[in-house]
Amino acid sequence: MTPTTAAIPCFYDLAALPIEQVEELLALATRLRTHPEPRALEGKVLSLLFMNPSLRTLASFQSAMIRLGGGCFMISPDMSIHGLETRSGIVMDGRAAEHIRDAVPVIASYGDALAIRLFAERISLQADLADTAWLELAALADVPTINMESAAYHPCQSLADWKTLDELGVPGQRGKLVVSWAYHPRPMPLSGVISTVQMAAMRGMDVTVLRPDAYALPDAVVARARALAAGSGGSYRETADRREAMQGAQVVFAKEWCSPALYENRLAETRRREELTDWCVDEPWFEGAAPDCRFLHAMPIRRGVTATDRLLDSPRSAVLHGARNRLWTQMAVLHRMMRK
Amino acid sequence: MTPTTAAIPCFYDLAALPIEQVEELLALATRLRTHPEPRALEGKVLSLLFMNPSLRTLASFQSAMIRLGGGCFMISPDMSIHGLETRSGIVMDGRAAEHIRDAVPVIASYGDALAIRLFAERISLQADLADTAWLELAALADVPTINMESAAYHPCQSLADWKTLDELGVPGQRGKLVVSWAYHPRPMPLSGVISTVQMAAMRGMDVTVLRPDAYALPDAVVARARALAAGSGGSYRETADRREAMQGAQVVFAKEWCSPALYENRLAETRRREELTDWCVDEPWFEGAAPDCRFLHAMPIRRGVTATDRLLDSPRSAVLHGARNRLWTQMAVLHRMMRK
Amino acid sequence: MTPTTAAIPCFYDLAALPIEQVEELLALATRLRTHPEPRALEGKVLSLLFMNPSLRTLASFQSAMIRLGGGCFMISPDMSIHGLETRSGIVMDGRAAEHIRDAVPVIASYGDALAIRLFAERISLQADLADTAWLELAALADVPTINMESAAYHPCQSLADWKTLDELGVPGQRGKLVVSWAYHPRPMPLSGVISTVQMAAMRGMDVTVLRPDAYALPDAVVARARALAAGSGGSYRETADRREAMQGAQVVFAKEWCSPALYENRLAETRRREELTDWCVDEPWFEGAAPDCRFLHAMPIRRGVTATDRLLDSPRSAVLHGARNRLWTQMAVLHRMMRK
Repeated sequence: MTPTTAAIPCFYDLAALPIEQVEELLALATRLRTHPEPRALEGKVLSLLFMNPSLRTLASFQSAMIRLGGGCFMISPDMSIHGLETRSGIVMDGRAAEHIRDAVPVIASYGDALAIRLFAERISLQADLADTAWLELAALADVPTINMESAAYHPCQSLADWKTLDELGVPGQRGKLVVSWAYHPRPMPLSGVISTVQMAAMRGMDVTVLRPDAYALPDAVVARARALAAGSGGSYRETADRREAMQGAQVVFAKEWCSPALYENRLAETRRREELTDWCVDEPWFEGAAPDCRFLHAMPIRRGVTATDRLLDSPRSAVLHGARNRLWTQMAVLHRMMRK
Repeated sequence: MTPTTAAIPCFYDLAALPIEQVEELLALATRLRTHPEPRALEGKVLSLLFMNPSLRTLASFQSAMIRLGGGCFMISPDMSIHGLETRSGIVMDGRAAEHIRDAVPVIASYGDALAIRLFAERISLQADLADTAWLELAALADVPTINMESAAYHPCQSLADWKTLDELGVPGQRGKLVVSWAYHPRPMPLSGVISTVQMAAMRGMDVTVLRPDAYALPDAVVARARALAAGSGGSYRETADRREAMQGAQVVFAKEWCSPALYENRLAETRRREELTDWCVDEPWFEGAAPDCRFLHAMPIRRGVTATDRLLDSPRSAVLHGARNRLWTQMAVLHRMMRK
Repeated sequence: MTPTTAAIPCFYDLAALPIEQVEELLALATRLRTHPEPRALEGKVLSLLFMNPSLRTLASFQSAMIRLGGGCFMISPDMSIHGLETRSGIVMDGRAAEHIRDAVPVIASYGDALAIRLFAERISLQADLADTAWLELAALADVPTINMESAAYHPCQSLADWKTLDELGVPGQRGKLVVSWAYHPRPMPLSGVISTVQMAAMRGMDVTVLRPDAYALPDAVVARARALAAGSGGSYRETADRREAMQGAQVVFAKEWCSPALYENRLAETRRREELTDWCVDEPWFEGAAPDCRFLHAMPIRRGVTATDRLLDSPRSAVLHGARNRLWTQMAVLHRMMRK
């Protein structure tokens, strides 16, 4: 089935859900934390397909299924005999012994839901924003699917972030959120920043994206964020002026994304970002922000590169708080999807 | 214990089971699919020892145990400190820090059953047909064992195939089954073809093995297939004539096996098969077959090499159907073996 | 929390527990073996962090959690995007994408307890004996922790050994135990020998450490062993004289440890031990020992190097018996730690 089929519930793009459904999931997450349901999913299986590495996502999904009485199995390409072929129409006389097109339906059929991680291919910005590769894999499954991070979205992270903001007391309506670009030695995908701005816009927040000029987000991303903000009473803007951006900020997310303009030229992008190593988020950045402004990051985070040790180890950082919520919000998604 | 010990039930060679037991397992598989028993094996553990890579087998056994309320752990040689030594009587002053002879009894003892995958060594045809290596490992376990593919047999695959044939309406008595040799760039083992012809012969089918002359099956394999066919009202023959073989076929399995004559000479075998790349199963092959003749393969399958995309993506292919049955038939085996 | 915090029970150093608690754990291990409790830990999760390879520990902890109705997830450095950084205060612009200091609290929070394996760094004997690295990791967790082998201790092994000695009928009070140094091509850590002598001393045994002179144990280790022996009516001594050591021995453990004097000079240590390859434990060593004296080793064991095949395959060897007990004693620890 495709993730757009209404008959089978999928968890692919948080912003595609009605806000009431998001709020229901958040309430369920809180309930499952305080009132465990260790038999809710007994005998149920989540298939995990990781086309890329993982730490939090792998650990939290496994823990979530065990806590609900079921379990997971995990497949990654290096577990097949010689890796998985992903190209279409090819004569498979090389190393790969199996085509992903054949492997996915099988793996899917052994579970009650299939969760897939597939990072951006970084060949075409347009294809990655359309999430072609992830959607093609998900369409091969005949069970509900969960997006564990695709080229365009990371809904599991955004749902956890929403809960974290609630718990930190950061207001939805007109709460001021800054998403700041931050340095990373390698050009990183757009999925994280897209999901964060969408989540904040849905929540009715005043969203400011702080970034070097070359890192303005693609028009389509901006247009969707503005539409979501318009629907919920929030706002969206971008700026390269840090002082202005941070004025009154109630929460700051750091994200490392690559330049849309140089998306398909990894070498040029890598070179250009070498001049931006001072975009390492640090305590002085918070001058002008609300006194209790908190700092968040989706992890993994490079210490001394994306943010300083002193910020990460200060009370301002809620990075760990955010990561912990992955478990409870994913449990809610699984409970909703698999519970009869 | 050895797999031949009757006191502890093992699942090693499908053809060693009475047909009534096979039919009981198939009925149990169907029942478990429609009537889940999520507490049947609560607190039970299946130990998985993979000496070779796996995708379907690994995923389906894990799923099966979770669906029955238990669980698995998996061990492969690369998880020990420096791999596992398999040679006997050796002074272990090299890389390997542990002998398989010591590891297996320990791993076995942590579970209620031990499933082992160990592909053919391809050093001696006789040793591989006698399945010496797998039997030696299994003899080290003091719990029931399951064969997840050895040099000579793949009973989990055959049991699933039997169920698939039942579901496809392919008759047992006198149903016409073709097992066709197909190209693969590497010489593959005999376990798959041996298990398939045995299964079909036990089922009472008219079995035709279609293969280039150099790929005739070993005498011992043929003799056993004939004996099984004789016992159940079926028949067995081999031919290199595709047109003749396909006449009236109701189901075709593709298999890639190496030449018994060149079994111990991998280089010569690899060279010879280069002339046989036209043994890529395709739709025109089915001229003369029954109109609703289906195509099966145990997977993984090399697209454009072993079978064409157009065949695999056509309604004739039941490849995915077959792979899905692995889950339910293995659940039946586990239920039978571990349920008090 | 730190492992010394009394409020949350940790399982870090067996010798830090009152003997009554050890005996309670051993009784619980026996009870869980004969009276399974497949729902005792339903919905509970054990996080496994392996900074080093494992076979027995990995398999037995997974089996233990399943048998008690819960489950595990496992994280090792190679599962993060580019490994885990372990150095403090570093600018992370190299390969590692995540700091262990950030990963551990997250992993810990997804479970109800965190088990950590972290072998000796072998940079400083003092730091390794103080177990600085393991304690620092454990202090990052806000759930109870289990030591799956640190630089200084291997309490899971020692608890299993205690049970094995009980089952073999080796007396506690004044039972005679020999820990013999044995050859290994690589210099091995001290954790195993330290834990074994402590366990035996706590048990009230007469402990003899048999080793080449250069392999005398560090003063602090000896002092603690003597104190434990004094408290329980046992004794402790070291000798290089095999014949004398083996007189009347009721059980012999073989261990491969590195010279404390050359601890920080791996090359010199590797060279020196080349002269000690005759320290391969063999049947003739047991002349003078009690007739029913048994042989134990924590595994993995290098056959023909650390002990001979004929010893390992003789009735004197209880190596496998010992390894099997890992499952039941660890189940007792988990039950004690996580059961409400």
